[in-house]
Amino acid sequence: MDIPSWAPTLVGSVAAVCTTGAFVPQVVRVWRLKSAGQISLTTFLLFALGTLVWLVYGVLINSIPVIAANGVTLVLALTIVSLKLNYDRKSRRGFPGAPPELNRRP
Amino acid sequence: MDIPSWAPTLVGSVAAVCTTGAFVPQVVRVWRLKSAGQISLTTFLLFALGTLVWLVYGVLINSIPVIAANGVTLVLALTIVSLKLNYDRKSRRGFPGAPPELNRRP
Repeated sequence: MDIPSWAPTLVGSVAAVCTTGAFVPQVVRVWRLKSAGQISLTTFLLFALGTLVWLVYGVLINSIPVIAANGVTLVLALTIVSLKLNYDRKSRRGFPGAPPELNRRP
Repeated sequence: MDIPSWAPTLVGSVAAVCTTGAFVPQVVRVWRLKSAGQISLTTFLLFALGTLVWLVYGVLINSIPVIAANGVTLVLALTIVSLKLNYDRKSRRGFPGAPPELNRRP
């Protein structure tokens, strides 16, 4: 079966919109709850690192969807990391208005 | 600058290990806390869909790292979705032992 030359780019673009856009609701949720105790810092730090390496991979294989998707995803992942660090710090200091944190290390 | 032919596969493999392995701590955290109220369901559903489409993209461009990474990531993302649905349900029913949920829709 012949695959049209535009097919990979289209499929990659759809994938990119999904996996990149997916993190926007999580950013919004953390922001509105002003809490991220259940979010794994390790996950999002490691994920951010991985998206950076994927970005490099995209450059090596000349894939625009891979480069673009991981560039934006990297920003979103680092946003979540930043928010979490901020809210966790405020929670530990008993910052007025900070919600109770499930901060125990499971 | 000539890029060795093995370089993209190596870089892609490192990226795959990072972004796929990144979700393991989040799965563990949700499992141990028995709670996922702060996790965005939309995020992980959309992310799971995206990894599936990336898997298809990997097939189209014959990229083993893309295929393998997204296959495993898909399983981890769906695990988080499954755990969240389970814990959210138990929380709404007042299941004994279920922790207080930040269940308000932000």
